[in-house]
Amino acid sequence: MKESIRVDFEPIGRRVRVDADTSILTAARKAGIGITAVCNGQGTCHQCVIRLVSGKLNPLTDIEKSVFSPQKQSEGWRLACQTIPISDVSLEVPPQSISTQQRLQLEGQQFEGDPAPAVRVVRVSIEPASPMDLRADQTRLKDALETIRPAVDIPIRQLDKISPLLRTQGWQVDLVLNENGTLTGCLGADKRLVGLALDIGTTKLAAYLVDLESGKTMAKMGEVNPQISYGEDVISRIAYANQSDTKKAALQKVLRIAINRLIKRLCKNAHVQPDQIMDAVVVGNTAMHHLFAGLPVRQLGEAPYVPGVSDSLYLPAHELGLDLSPGALVYLPPNIAGFVGSDHISADLACGLLDAGETTMLVDIGTNTEITLRTPLGISCCSCASGPAFEGAHIHSGMRAAAGAIERVFFNSGQWNYTTIGQGPPAGICGSGILDAVAEMRRVGIIDERGVFQPGQAGVEKQGHLSSFQLVPADPVNNVDAIQVTRKDVNEIQLAKAAIRAGIEILLKESQLEANQIQRFIVAGAFGTYLHLPSALAIGMFPPLPEERFFQAGNAAGAGARYMLLVNEFRKQAEALYGRMKYIELTIQKDFQETYMASLLLDNQPIK
Amino acid sequence: MKESIRVDFEPIGRRVRVDADTSILTAARKAGIGITAVCNGQGTCHQCVIRLVSGKLNPLTDIEKSVFSPQKQSEGWRLACQTIPISDVSLEVPPQSISTQQRLQLEGQQFEGDPAPAVRVVRVSIEPASPMDLRADQTRLKDALETIRPAVDIPIRQLDKISPLLRTQGWQVDLVLNENGTLTGCLGADKRLVGLALDIGTTKLAAYLVDLESGKTMAKMGEVNPQISYGEDVISRIAYANQSDTKKAALQKVLRIAINRLIKRLCKNAHVQPDQIMDAVVVGNTAMHHLFAGLPVRQLGEAPYVPGVSDSLYLPAHELGLDLSPGALVYLPPNIAGFVGSDHISADLACGLLDAGETTMLVDIGTNTEITLRTPLGISCCSCASGPAFEGAHIHSGMRAAAGAIERVFFNSGQWNYTTIGQGPPAGICGSGILDAVAEMRRVGIIDERGVFQPGQAGVEKQGHLSSFQLVPADPVNNVDAIQVTRKDVNEIQLAKAAIRAGIEILLKESQLEANQIQRFIVAGAFGTYLHLPSALAIGMFPPLPEERFFQAGNAAGAGARYMLLVNEFRKQAEALYGRMKYIELTIQKDFQETYMASLLLDNQPIK
Repeated sequence: MKESIRVDFEPIGRRVRVDADTSILTAARKAGIGITAVCNGQGTCHQCVIRLVSGKLNPLTDIEKSVFSPQKQSEGWRLACQTIPISDVSLEVPPQSISTQQRLQLEGQQFEGDPAPAVRVVRVSIEPASPMDLRADQTRLKDALETIRPAVDIPIRQLDKISPLLRTQGWQVDLVLNENGTLTGCLGADKRLVGLALDIGTTKLAAYLVDLESGKTMAKMGEVNPQISYGEDVISRIAYANQSDTKKAALQKVLRIAINRLIKRLCKNAHVQPDQIMDAVVVGNTAMHHLFAGLPVRQLGEAPYVPGVSDSLYLPAHELGLDLSPGALVYLPPNIAGFVGSDHISADLACGLLDAGETTMLVDIGTNTEITLRTPLGISCCSCASGPAFEGAHIHSGMRAAAGAIERVFFNSGQWNYTTIGQGPPAGICGSGILDAVAEMRRVGIIDERGVFQPGQAGVEKQGHLSSFQLVPADPVNNVDAIQVTRKDVNEIQLAKAAIRAGIEILLKESQLEANQIQRFIVAGAFGTYLHLPSALAIGMFPPLPEERFFQAGNAAGAGARYMLLVNEFRKQAEALYGRMKYIELTIQKDFQETYMASLLLDNQPIK
Repeated sequence: MKESIRVDFEPIGRRVRVDADTSILTAARKAGIGITAVCNGQGTCHQCVIRLVSGKLNPLTDIEKSVFSPQKQSEGWRLACQTIPISDVSLEVPPQSISTQQRLQLEGQQFEGDPAPAVRVVRVSIEPASPMDLRADQTRLKDALETIRPAVDIPIRQLDKISPLLRTQGWQVDLVLNENGTLTGCLGADKRLVGLALDIGTTKLAAYLVDLESGKTMAKMGEVNPQISYGEDVISRIAYANQSDTKKAALQKVLRIAINRLIKRLCKNAHVQPDQIMDAVVVGNTAMHHLFAGLPVRQLGEAPYVPGVSDSLYLPAHELGLDLSPGALVYLPPNIAGFVGSDHISADLACGLLDAGETTMLVDIGTNTEITLRTPLGISCCSCASGPAFEGAHIHSGMRAAAGAIERVFFNSGQWNYTTIGQGPPAGICGSGILDAVAEMRRVGIIDERGVFQPGQAGVEKQGHLSSFQLVPADPVNNVDAIQVTRKDVNEIQLAKAAIRAGIEILLKESQLEANQIQRFIVAGAFGTYLHLPSALAIGMFPPLPEERFFQAGNAAGAGARYMLLVNEFRKQAEALYGRMKYIELTIQKDFQETYMASLLLDNQPIK
């Protein structure tokens, strides 16, 4: 009988026992973890990336040596299909290697270090009220706090909770103060001090419940932004809000309800009460920020697209309609511009751009893509209208990254291979899938660098003037429609990647840098995490840099929100970033049009 | 043909033309003004008091010379029934002389002087947004205001109104700032700067819309406090609120709705929009204050009855759910104790008690009666549980001061006379009516000083042990029930007046004063305004002082609220009053019980 070896998968927290000669890819499947592997373990797609945390694996194979840079090798990166455990092992599965049922991306850099949040607990003993001492409860609290912290502001909403507690707890309470000297709440029987970090994306909400004393994330959860039924992108939602105050209020209301539902579910998972949440940090793009905060959005949809508010805000939770401690203040970091919001500041912060010594570029890809360039001399950013193609919209067989979406495409040994999210039959193709498809079509020669379909290629059909490539044939028996990539789809990808590339190039030009001077190139956001980097490089979405300079950062905005929640000083850093940030409005740059045209080509050449 | 003379009645603003030999009482009736005159013009009830403002009247009659002190005579006070106009005249009709349909008392001292409110208008011209100048609207406003007033706080709720206005008004707006440097609003097409003063009584709401530039009251309106359906007095409302958070919220909601309805009606009358209301002052007793502000009330209903908040508050109108300018702050003056609220501070202020040189006593009568004693050495106050008898409650034939209530009772020439509010058939008896009735019953000898019914008096009936006096016999034809004054009614009045008198005496003792050292004795509040002073003196509700020392001040709390709205300095005075006020808790005074017992007697003797 063969030896049984234990394999731990982190951060998912799954454990499985396998025979000694089982590959990690097989072990992961046995553990119910959907590791992406388009080539089905042949070692050709290079997507099943994992990292050894502890224990021993077989030596690196030749395939792995060709895939990973020496640095990556030394960090323990492997391909799951090439790897066999020699001892009990613990492995990290990065999010981009996981194909989940519904991709509501929650991972990102974890905060390491000691929490130093904006709120703290103080135990206060108060003189009881008596006929000889008839001070009001508020006065009594202020007087008792005077020695601990002078001039505490006691918002009157707190008293509804504190006044009865004073009388049932023998005039002793655990009060929570924030650094501005405002009473944010009062701990009840459960003494945990809890905070909420929230990233309001146009498509997705990501929420994290954090223990402010240990720094641990107690629960995290994602949900689709329900505003999506009022418009897929920010422009259509602004247009909807502009129709009437009632419609604007409806947008705000569905968001508020969804956030409160998230809070309730997070709290249930973590066994805490919503009114224990004493602090919150909320990030989002400027339009989401404004709709969340109840700010005007009309001017965000009309040139010159200025924000209503760019400075950071502290807003009372109850004013926002959030079910937190009634005195909790919600911190919203600054917005840089109409289309570069607090979520981008938050991502910059999580990626350490304030104090970065290396020349670093951060690209956060979405319907709108925000880019920051940090050089030793300064920091600048821009916004690119990359459009919704990478979210599967405006694509012939496109769909969002949900179950059934083709997320990886790979041509190998004369065969088109693909994997779907959830491993079921294909229902459409999502952003990372269409990116792969276009890159592979270009590699195989189905299209040229202009995106033009080449005659005589297998799988290419022509209907009238329009060519298309059939990636998956129809299967009427299994009720599967054909999945095609059309000339128009290729064009959408060209427009989207050109917008991003042009932004990158203009920022470089503004700083008088060449692309190869970028030492770290960070790709953030959901699509940025799941995209197959070689495909993005092959079609020239990013400048041709060595692969080891690239980092896929996950939900950096959400990570930054947690940083600001756990360490108050990070809020000051976010504000410092905002203060130093030079915003470059692309549309008024004289080189923009030319750079954009040059960026349309599907190749991996530098742009001059 | 007789000469036609013009008679103007102020402050009602009614004008009438009459023949030269018509009495003013008749003229008033012709003008539709219900002047109180129980004796129907015989000159015996002395209630139809008016004052000559301009023009000429017949000389004083002997009756008037006996009624009015020389000072009152020199001030122009007359009895309407004794007075005939010699020329066109303008007359003041004080509120206590008017019998209105529904007594929602709105009159009180008018503010004389130049307004110096807490808000001011500044016209600001702002640089337009452009691709070269992408500052956020909030930043742009702050920058433009920097030269006018540095560090203005621009609450984000304002931007929803200001951002569109900036763009439609050519980047020029009239902003309203308050003295704390907070932007409270933005004037639209109508440039008037408007404020709201509101007195939340347990029974009645009194609201005033004030032009903050001219100082004029643009509109005033009263309404029954709708919380009355949840309990007639504050104690029963606190008990209701204690039952559940939902019930407490219901109390708050009905009040908010009623106030917003008042605001809407006031604005309609004054032809302004609610969002032009840039400032507000709200006063009320501590329970009303707490329910309005959303503060806990449980501790107000349990010994030792301490307020949740006693300091003054500035609360955002939108947080209170009031339909004012979204940035308006509502000022609530301090509460002195659990049963001495901001309304009493406001009344003290209106009556000039902060700087009073004379020894002054202010008695504000209600279910709870608050008393302030101002001496050259200091200022002290107390609260007396006078109960609801003076509001017609717990009285056999009692009713509130509404149409049909007997409000004056007068025994003359062997006859019992009375008048009703609205002059219709009697439906019951209200506070001032039962006070008169008990005083007249005592004068006539129906009851003795202990309140005991005397045998053999006309109109006295005995059922078992209980005596009662029939003031109005039943009239089945006109569907009128008998109106009786029972032994229990007399007792209720004794308890109520003893509570007030004991408070007066304890305050005097605390300050080591005798009653006759009081130089001004001010009676405020609705009942205090309509009560017939000789009756109150006859039964010893007030100490036996010369009548000219008494002043019936009307709704002094509402007047004080208007003062604080018109002149910001008055808010500081209210806070100074609060700071200097010594609150005397009657129940822990060792003399209290004895003084109270001595005060129960129905006579006009000093209490030692």
